[in-house]
This record gives sequence, structure tokens and C-alpha cells, in this order.
Amino acid sequence: MRPGGITIGIVAPASRLEPALAEKTIELARSLYPDRPPELRFHPQCFMSSGHFAGDDETRAQAFLEVANDESIDALWFARGGYGSGRLTERVLAGLTPAASGKTYLGYSDAGALLGALYTRGFDGLAHGPMSADLKREGGEAAVKRALAFLVDRAPSALERTVSAAGLTAAFNITVLSHLIGTPWQPDLSGHVLMLEEVSEHMYRIDRALLHITGNPAIRRVAGIRLGRCSAIPPNEPDFGQTAEQVVRHWCDASGIPYLGPADIGHDIDNKVVPFGRLRLA
Amino acid sequence: MRPGGITIGIVAPASRLEPALAEKTIELARSLYPDRPPELRFHPQCFMSSGHFAGDDETRAQAFLEVANDESIDALWFARGGYGSGRLTERVLAGLTPAASGKTYLGYSDAGALLGALYTRGFDGLAHGPMSADLKREGGEAAVKRALAFLVDRAPSALERTVSAAGLTAAFNITVLSHLIGTPWQPDLSGHVLMLEEVSEHMYRIDRALLHITGNPAIRRVAGIRLGRCSAIPPNEPDFGQTAEQVVRHWCDASGIPYLGPADIGHDIDNKVVPFGRLRLA
Repeated sequence: MRPGGITIGIVAPASRLEPALAEKTIELARSLYPDRPPELRFHPQCFMSSGHFAGDDETRAQAFLEVANDESIDALWFARGGYGSGRLTERVLAGLTPAASGKTYLGYSDAGALLGALYTRGFDGLAHGPMSADLKREGGEAAVKRALAFLVDRAPSALERTVSAAGLTAAFNITVLSHLIGTPWQPDLSGHVLMLEEVSEHMYRIDRALLHITGNPAIRRVAGIRLGRCSAIPPNEPDFGQTAEQVVRHWCDASGIPYLGPADIGHDIDNKVVPFGRLRLA
Repeated sequence: MRPGGITIGIVAPASRLEPALAEKTIELARSLYPDRPPELRFHPQCFMSSGHFAGDDETRAQAFLEVANDESIDALWFARGGYGSGRLTERVLAGLTPAASGKTYLGYSDAGALLGALYTRGFDGLAHGPMSADLKREGGEAAVKRALAFLVDRAPSALERTVSAAGLTAAFNITVLSHLIGTPWQPDLSGHVLMLEEVSEHMYRIDRALLHITGNPAIRRVAGIRLGRCSAIPPNEPDFGQTAEQVVRHWCDASGIPYLGPADIGHDIDNKVVPFGRLRLA
């Protein structure tokens, strides 16, 4: 850690970040911590473009590894979601050095593909939470402020309200977790409270992904599932006739997984931080 | 088998079939086989409706089992796709009797969820191929005629051109197979030529599902992958920059699975029949 403040490296393993959002994030961090401003190092890769992605796979994986393996950086912060993190998994896992495992990693949505994979390697500094791109949302400063409060001070106020040092937790986007099932990068979530959220997916797709997730024998060993917000669900034709909560309850009942109630996470400005594993407030 | 012709039982484990399509299918069968018309028994469940589905889960599973377990029925033909077959898997597998394993089962798209699950139980009469609902397509008679040629006569002309008794094959919709990965209902496709097709999915979703499928260690034991048609792909924003064939080749390369070329299957009237396992022309 630098004298005065921590150093946060930002990479974009999925979609490209607009440079203006990076500048806005740096200004926000300076205004929040005038005496000990965190150094926000946006890797130039964040602003690159290659079709759907922020640079090609090799470029994005290389940037991720440069930040993850840099001893002078305290935390790796995902810039935004989209799609593409999972494409880097084999490259990233093959290139990690010991410096990578001591860091904090924060992101959500598509970032869950890499967070899940890193969790299979025993990384204990992983967390689901807001990203720079959340500044695009109305009132998005609240989300980014929360992420910084977690990264800079491990502020308990940043955490999802049911997170405690007493139990294991993890949080995923439903579709992203569905695509980890049955791969070598599916994390062992035995005994964890698993929090799930979704955005912009039809209800029949949410149902299908939950059928998939809860059908996996290892997932059936979670302590329980909490449902975050499922937002911007396109209309189903015909109407699906069930809410997201009803759908989750159905699959919890069918699979013998306890349904534990709502989780305060989602693709919105109220998205809270959920550490992977046991909470460390060090 | 009845004197004169076979008996085909039709059920709809996913979405509802319009009664007019059932009548049209029966007329077509009579006109094609005037001397030995197959008896097409559309289970009344096909025409029921419960939200998204053709009746609730219990009703659809019961109908499936009534047909599957009926000694007097030679083949179970899926009426149409949509979404819902996978919701019935545990109920169906628990209710099968020995009469079920001697039958032919024909369907595709969402039906793959149950075909895959039945394949895990050693059923050897499963096949991917057209359904009654294909009559809705312009020129759809060709597809249904092909399905009947397979069901009634095991006509070699109905088969995908690379299918032979010399090798093992299977065919799936990409998204449907992705949702079987890592579940107890994921079939063992070791040594099989795996044919894949897709409809109405964004290219980034096709990419993500193929990353998922080819990441599964058991899938990496297939003999190779053939790509069927990927149709009605919505525009990607930004443009994905790769065709479906490029995407499949990429994931085959990355996973060490041989890419074997195109397959003559898809959500269209040219969709050919692909038996699961080894071709039996008995």
C-alpha cells in the first residue's frame, strides 16, 4: 500500500469502458478521500476495442495478469460487465503468480465468470460489488462510493446486510453461474449462502437457468439461496405466470435447497458488496 | 405394431400445439401412407394450456409417461419445442417402465432436454428430428414427411448425410445442451459426433454457450463437433465480428475437439434426422 492510500488497478475483461467514466471515477475517489486518495490505475486496455470486447482475448488476459500479478497494487477492480471474462479463464489461471492471491478483487455480472474461477484456486479476497460503469446509472455515485468504501476501508456499511463473519457467502448473476456449472471453473459453494441476481433475461430463461443450477449435485450442497433483484425482465409470450421469487422458491423446493429470502444485490445503484467465502474485515 | 401401420403417440412436454396442426399432420400421414396409415394419437395434453406451458408440470409429465409406457405405441413423437421439457426430467425418469425403453423418440430443440436425459438411461431409440409444429413453416410438409419416413420406415433418406452405422452420433440445440452440462442428465457423448444448431440467440450467447459446453471435461471426449444452421440471430451490439462457424472453430481449437464441418440440421424445413448413439435401421 502506498503511504496515504491504497492502489487500485482497473481492467476490463469484458466490454470496453468509456474514458469519461474512468475520469469521473478518479474525481469521485479524490473527493471522497481528500487526505488519502486511493490511486486508481485504469489500465489502458479498458479503453481498447475489438468487436464485442475491450481488446482481443490475449490483450485482455495480459492486462488482467499485469494488474493481478503487480505487487504494488492492492486491489483489482473490474471496470464493467458485458460479456467476455469467461473467455479469459484458462489464460488467466495459467498466468497467475503468488502476488495475485493476496489481492482484493471486486466486480459483478459477467465478472463472476473470473471471480468464480479464481475462487476454485482458493483466492480469499474476492467480492461481488459495484464497478466504475455503474456511474452511468442515475444516482450511480452511490454504488461506486460503496465499492470504494469496501476497497479502501472494508466498510461494513458497504456489505449486503446478511453478510457476517459467521458464515460463508457468494453472489452471482444467474446466467453467469449457469455457464460455470460442470466446468473446471465451477467454484465449490458447499455451505455458502448463495445470492443470485439477474437483469434483462426473460422469465423462462431465468427458470431454465435455475433448473440448471439447482440440478447440479455440488450446488445442492449450498447452505441456501437468497434472491437479489431481477430487473428489466422482457415480457414473456405467453405470460410466464410466476414472479422471479416464485421461480426460485420452486427450484429450491424441487432440489431441497433452503430458500432464505431476499438479497440486497442487483444491476442497480443499491447493489451491495458480498464477499466470496468468509468475511475478512482486516 | 398394429396390422397395417405403426402407432405414434404425440405429447407436448413444452409449449402447446395448435389443434389445427395436429389435424393437418394426421391428414398428411394418411395421404403419404394410404395402404398402411400410421395411427397418430395426439394426447389431449398437447392442446392444454397453463401459462407458458401445455398444461402444468404434473399434467405434461403424466402424458409423457402414459405414451412412453404404453405397450401398444411404437414411437413417442414430440409435438413441438418452446420451453418446458427439462422441467419434467425428474418426474419422467422416476415413472418410466420397461415398455418405455423399446420405443423410438423423435424431437428436437427443447425436446433435447428429455432426449438427453433418456440417453443417460441407456435408451437406444432416441433421435433428433422434425416435429408436427414444423408444419407452421413455409414448406413445412417436407420436414414432417421426413420425420414420418423415419418413424414409419427408418428411411435412410431422412437421415443427416454423415450419419452411418459406423459411428456414434447425437444432435442438440446449443442452448439446450448448455443447460444439461453438469447435471445428472448430461448424456455421455464420448466418441460421438456431436451436431449442434441454434435459433434466435445473439452471437455472444452462442459464443458463451459454446465456451460452456466445450469447457466440460466429458464433452471434450466427443469424436468431434459438426455445426448445423444457426438461424434468426438477432443483431449484436456492437457487431460480434465472427460467424457461428468461426465461433465453433474457435472453441473446438481451444478445447482440443476436432471440428468436422457442417451438419444438415437446424430450425428449418431441411432439418434432418440424427439418431442418438449408433444408427439402427431395424
